[in-house]
Amino acid sequence: MPKNAFYAQSGGVTAVINATAAGVIETARMHPDRIGKVLAGRNGIIGALSEDLIDTSRESAESIAALKHTPSGAFGSCRYKLKGLDENRAEYERLIEVFRAHDIGYFFYNGGGDSSDTAFKVSQLGETLGYPVIAVGIPKTVDNDLPITDNCPGFGSVAKYVAVSIREASFDVASMALTSTKVFILEVMGRHAGWIAAAGGLAADREGGPPQVILFPEIAFDEAAFIEKVRASVEKDGYCSVVVSEGVRDGEGRFLSEVGASDAFGHAQLGGVAPVIANLVKERLGYKYHWAVADYLQRAARHIASQTDLDQACALGRAAVEIALAGRNGVMPVLVRTSDEPYAWEVGEASLSEVANVEKKVPREYITDDGFGITEACRRYLAPLIRGEAYPPYRDGLPDYVVLDNHPVPKKLGTRFAPR
Amino acid sequence: MPKNAFYAQSGGVTAVINATAAGVIETARMHPDRIGKVLAGRNGIIGALSEDLIDTSRESAESIAALKHTPSGAFGSCRYKLKGLDENRAEYERLIEVFRAHDIGYFFYNGGGDSSDTAFKVSQLGETLGYPVIAVGIPKTVDNDLPITDNCPGFGSVAKYVAVSIREASFDVASMALTSTKVFILEVMGRHAGWIAAAGGLAADREGGPPQVILFPEIAFDEAAFIEKVRASVEKDGYCSVVVSEGVRDGEGRFLSEVGASDAFGHAQLGGVAPVIANLVKERLGYKYHWAVADYLQRAARHIASQTDLDQACALGRAAVEIALAGRNGVMPVLVRTSDEPYAWEVGEASLSEVANVEKKVPREYITDDGFGITEACRRYLAPLIRGEAYPPYRDGLPDYVVLDNHPVPKKLGTRFAPR
Repeated sequence: MPKNAFYAQSGGVTAVINATAAGVIETARMHPDRIGKVLAGRNGIIGALSEDLIDTSRESAESIAALKHTPSGAFGSCRYKLKGLDENRAEYERLIEVFRAHDIGYFFYNGGGDSSDTAFKVSQLGETLGYPVIAVGIPKTVDNDLPITDNCPGFGSVAKYVAVSIREASFDVASMALTSTKVFILEVMGRHAGWIAAAGGLAADREGGPPQVILFPEIAFDEAAFIEKVRASVEKDGYCSVVVSEGVRDGEGRFLSEVGASDAFGHAQLGGVAPVIANLVKERLGYKYHWAVADYLQRAARHIASQTDLDQACALGRAAVEIALAGRNGVMPVLVRTSDEPYAWEVGEASLSEVANVEKKVPREYITDDGFGITEACRRYLAPLIRGEAYPPYRDGLPDYVVLDNHPVPKKLGTRFAPR
Repeated sequence: MPKNAFYAQSGGVTAVINATAAGVIETARMHPDRIGKVLAGRNGIIGALSEDLIDTSRESAESIAALKHTPSGAFGSCRYKLKGLDENRAEYERLIEVFRAHDIGYFFYNGGGDSSDTAFKVSQLGETLGYPVIAVGIPKTVDNDLPITDNCPGFGSVAKYVAVSIREASFDVASMALTSTKVFILEVMGRHAGWIAAAGGLAADREGGPPQVILFPEIAFDEAAFIEKVRASVEKDGYCSVVVSEGVRDGEGRFLSEVGASDAFGHAQLGGVAPVIANLVKERLGYKYHWAVADYLQRAARHIASQTDLDQACALGRAAVEIALAGRNGVMPVLVRTSDEPYAWEVGEASLSEVANVEKKVPREYITDDGFGITEACRRYLAPLIRGEAYPPYRDGLPDYVVLDNHPVPKKLGTRFAPR
């Protein structure tokens, strides 16, 4: 009997993580002699720990294919990082107990940096605890902060959403600026890395075009320089569009969203750096402002997903299964860019130990000297990632997303395990 | 020589107001024997008062057609309400001075309730000040708050954006709720009328589906009932999606965004009711929350515009010119629904005096008894308005929106006029 495979989604979900799931499941189904069933963890790794497994073999080929156009995590995801083996041996022993009970020989873990760390530890279970399993990580993060891989599935679609949205809002503000809003501020995700904010810069189709200002977490917020930049933009263009990363910090490393923009105007906000920036603009410049916070809309926006992103998400799911079938353990398929223009990429491999817990920030040479824009090198890197519109099907004017049946696998263990 | 026409965009712009402009200009061009040039007001009516006119005849047919897929106001819009003739006779005399100098015999004013009032006053200039002009209003408002017309161009596209966005975010939250966010709050426009918030209800494809809670400006905020509803949703579904109108008020008629949700948790916010609601959820229920404020993104979102909305916006622009050519003054073309299912509509006419300054709110029978959802009658009304996806063309992954050349018409008057 071939071994079963375990697949789980981890951390924040994206517009295309389900496409990766489809890639994994469809490819596994092509090898019934090598892989039994794909059992998914309900709510990620917690499903493994609590023996709450989903039998994906009971889903039709149509439902699995529909995952390619459905955002979010179809099996549920979670924020739960396994500690080191020394610190929490019980969790690993429990994993083995569940894997053994369900004859699991392949472990596919679809997530970001923390998840690579977990997948790496699982890849060592043969050595450390005597239960050999082939563990393959599959990259996913809207933040695009994983090392080695040229980019991460999930990012291209957020990037497209942000670039499209700030272009549209900038058109709006430009047409109303004479008597109405002069400064528009869009807050985007990216607590530590500014890739998503940088993507807003793609909306500028000319030197100095909107967004005139981007605020990166990589650049300490300089209030005076920011105010001067906004003033100059309003004087030149009549308005100013700003994309601000949620992770922008002051010179002392404190999040602006927590400390307010300055002592004089610093109200602690209920989350959100956009209103802090807006208030600063109002107080210092007196301009009428509006602000938006995209929050989950940006990472769930499958309706405007990037075709490049979708293709890569699927490809990495497929590659993960092929890697596992080739018997390579402790590996992650990654994206390798072979050409900028025309854009070309292929799937390569990285060791999970190299990916785990390393954060890739926006390099300084991707940010203009004044700290408020992206350079041509950055644009060259980002541009292909948002290309192509991968529209979902619609029914009655709304995207026709699939909800799987998610049949539970009957439990075989009498034991319970409460995740922390 | 045929008379020229004046066209202006007024108030907040939309995803499809430029499609109305295209309808006006293309139809006028088909009647060169009757209409000379279409001169657009730069920044709306201010362009007329300051003799800052745009010669649309210098734009190619391709550019004018491209307006149909370009959001915002291509000629600029403004928030500027003409006072009554008695209060500000100078403004009307100035309008006539400019109209006469540029041989303007037709006045097309594309806006909401205030604009209908202005268009109505202009329609009376023949009687009141001896300069006859045929004035036709053309409805536009994302708020959908105009009377008589079944719905307003601009609304259907915002409605689609909101319904799509809350569906996507709800999928996201549902998949993460076990260990992460349990309550998601999306703030949408609608200061006085809850049509946009109501549209969020279209995302629910089953009884009780997300969004589980809608907060309307028409229903005084009942904190206890709201908290109970959220708690029940989280207990039943594991999470709760909330769509809140910016215009929600407390029992005393005060905007929640200004007073905070209650004295206990009331921080004056820098705009935004979503964070107020979020804080209330946190304080009363302790659930992890996230919130988004769509702001201008929603009304500029041409990338997800409704085909129904686009068709209607174009049709009303065309109809306005036909009405003018038929010599009917003081009129507005409106949308008349002739059937819910299959949805059918035609263009009718209303007198501007009936439209001006009347606000159409969401009727009580469109809101469920508990005040937190939409009824089947409301769904029947809203559903057809978001149907069809009118995608814009893309270039390099971004919508290819047009920016017109906007050639100024040489000034003929030596006089200047400073709008208030």
